[in-house]
Amino acid sequence: MDQQDIIDTAHEMADAARAAILPYFRARDLSADNKLAEGFDPVTVADRAAEEAMRAVLARRRPADAILGEEFGAQDGTSGLTWVLDPIDGTRAFIAGTPTWGVLIAVSDASGPVYGIVDQPYIGERFEGGFGLARATGPQGSWPLKTGGTQTLSEAILFTTFPEVGSQAEGAAFHAVAAQAKLTRYGMDCYAYALLASGHVDLVIEAGLQSYDIQGPMAVVQAAGGIVTDWTGGPVHMGGRVIAAANPSLHAAALAILSEAE
Amino acid sequence: MDQQDIIDTAHEMADAARAAILPYFRARDLSADNKLAEGFDPVTVADRAAEEAMRAVLARRRPADAILGEEFGAQDGTSGLTWVLDPIDGTRAFIAGTPTWGVLIAVSDASGPVYGIVDQPYIGERFEGGFGLARATGPQGSWPLKTGGTQTLSEAILFTTFPEVGSQAEGAAFHAVAAQAKLTRYGMDCYAYALLASGHVDLVIEAGLQSYDIQGPMAVVQAAGGIVTDWTGGPVHMGGRVIAAANPSLHAAALAILSEAE
Repeated sequence: MDQQDIIDTAHEMADAARAAILPYFRARDLSADNKLAEGFDPVTVADRAAEEAMRAVLARRRPADAILGEEFGAQDGTSGLTWVLDPIDGTRAFIAGTPTWGVLIAVSDASGPVYGIVDQPYIGERFEGGFGLARATGPQGSWPLKTGGTQTLSEAILFTTFPEVGSQAEGAAFHAVAAQAKLTRYGMDCYAYALLASGHVDLVIEAGLQSYDIQGPMAVVQAAGGIVTDWTGGPVHMGGRVIAAANPSLHAAALAILSEAE
Repeated sequence: MDQQDIIDTAHEMADAARAAILPYFRARDLSADNKLAEGFDPVTVADRAAEEAMRAVLARRRPADAILGEEFGAQDGTSGLTWVLDPIDGTRAFIAGTPTWGVLIAVSDASGPVYGIVDQPYIGERFEGGFGLARATGPQGSWPLKTGGTQTLSEAILFTTFPEVGSQAEGAAFHAVAAQAKLTRYGMDCYAYALLASGHVDLVIEAGLQSYDIQGPMAVVQAAGGIVTDWTGGPVHMGGRVIAAANPSLHAAALAILSEAE
């Protein structure tokens, strides 16, 4: 596996996705004023344009790798590696104009993601993890990614995207953890995992995720020292109910509550 | 009233607040690793440093104006104008590392704010409104502020900061509106008002605000064509229960539901 080529390819893909998406972010006039564009949905157009741009990079640089993308599905490969892509994670955030959606890129083998990127094009922030790297760059410079040392739920900052958190039973399990946390916040989509990898957030708990929702964030969080599993402690790179924790103690404490969910 | 001097002063204050706050944002090592700094609270230090920096600008440029600041309280003036300052609105967002807190600056006369700024230092975004101005600048350039034309609740994007929204009765009233909205999102603090002024969000509803929480956002939203009142349609620049709406139709529709709150 040529790690440097994978890293370079991933960054080229993230750059291409940024260029494809940014013209559509907060582009209210496009949808509101263009009579020809009835039914035009900026986030759908941006989503597809970004995935096409990333697939074009892969077709040129790494044609032997497989691809699984949110918008255009699966494409077989021969290398044993699969690129798992979500061009815009957080479409509702995108529609509302909040800068907390992201471009998710992961490279996986059979065991799960080995390298990943979470990119926020509007802010200009990129979080990457894998192959010995765990770092981020943003408008104020660069920093190493390392999860925090908070050991107990009562000191933990917990994030999820929607207060409902999946089914009624899943929501109840989440709120049982939230009741013990120091602070619970909502609405960050993939950005919450980036903050977990940066050491500011201690736990992210979600349900109903797809593989392309979690593999990029998972690679970044794991490279930063965190733990990402399903609610029983098993592998979650294929999606489902996700818990991402800053360290083993916190993971165990939250898992003890979540594992009782139906 | 020298409008240009007020505008220039406000921008100088926002620049000073940025410089004061940014060293503390996401400064995890300062609090985690410095044994001498037991009890050190980065957000409190940043809050105070930013308000001091803004007050220093006022002392030099506009000593006759009164000041009301979150951290250092009220200072009398003789000009009839009051600067209303919240150096960090969204301290919980700040602690969690999300880039959705803001520096709030307003200039008020007896009737309420006449000019205001919402600034997000990390992203480098500034929203301003008043004296005929309604504009924003950010990492991707500048744009005019103008609220959206969504007329009905069923098409509206609604924001608030906490799902609980104040008291039980206030929460019930909020969720009665949310049940009719197209999309409800949480966790943005003052940033939600900036998105309302930009035309991406249609409604912001909150309870328990202070004057310094609302006057900056209020000036920006009003300048962009929006309406900001309390839940009975009365003035809200002194704080309380706030509804900010993109236009009169939407304001009336939401107010009809909220005004039944105890």
